[in-house]
Amino acid sequence: MKLGRLNHIGVATPSIADSIAFYRDVMGATKIHTPFDLEEQGVKVCFVDTPGENGTNGTQIELIEPLGENSTLAGFLAKNPLGGQHHLCFEVPDIDEARSEFEALGKRILGPTRIGAHGTPIFFVHPKDMGGMLTEIMETPREGAHWSN
Amino acid sequence: MKLGRLNHIGVATPSIADSIAFYRDVMGATKIHTPFDLEEQGVKVCFVDTPGENGTNGTQIELIEPLGENSTLAGFLAKNPLGGQHHLCFEVPDIDEARSEFEALGKRILGPTRIGAHGTPIFFVHPKDMGGMLTEIMETPREGAHWSN
Repeated sequence: MKLGRLNHIGVATPSIADSIAFYRDVMGATKIHTPFDLEEQGVKVCFVDTPGENGTNGTQIELIEPLGENSTLAGFLAKNPLGGQHHLCFEVPDIDEARSEFEALGKRILGPTRIGAHGTPIFFVHPKDMGGMLTEIMETPREGAHWSN
Repeated sequence: MKLGRLNHIGVATPSIADSIAFYRDVMGATKIHTPFDLEEQGVKVCFVDTPGENGTNGTQIELIEPLGENSTLAGFLAKNPLGGQHHLCFEVPDIDEARSEFEALGKRILGPTRIGAHGTPIFFVHPKDMGGMLTEIMETPREGAHWSN
């Protein structure tokens, strides 16, 4: 596989409302998207844009807050009550090809390929096989595709 | 302050050599810089480039390995033996102005402003004041400046 864009870094937070205020008032973010629920993952999500070079889009901050009592984030926030860095997400051109490559390398993939927060297929790879980092692999949105987050 | 580029994410590793092999062979990175020692911080450093949009430079991965017995990374790796996400680094146009703003907000800055891995002034802000994330603030390298990492 060829390394793709670092689409976003996933940042766990006990309160997206508080984190929005932090990124707006302390860090000076100007492009903060509308939060939405991603029920399948048990999280509420809010993307914050960072600028890339020469007016391009940079890597996003994906704020994630637990949604419901059985959220996968509950354990993370129990250990890190203030929140913190939760995962990294890299883009690939073809999700099925990437999955096959990771499987061939013996990397533990967490669950099925599913639709992620940007509306394209994603899967997660176990942190123990990825240098200690929970890693999301995401198919690059196609040009003209309808995704607004 | 206005949110600048996410220059890099700092990734702690027990072995930069092993991490280089991982990013090259598993993740498909093609631009991996030469590792070097940053003695003042007690770390060995290696930057891995990720692509940005439209051929621009994306956010880098900054691999950091402990250098010497008193490295600040020792505690992190004791808790996270495989390594993991260690800090985020955002660019600002003027480091002194940014420092004054963080101080005015009562954010705890860790030590003096100093020269970072990219040869420009940086400082770190305490994770407890930054949503649980150790945050590096870095002055954007000026065009034409001599920095190769």
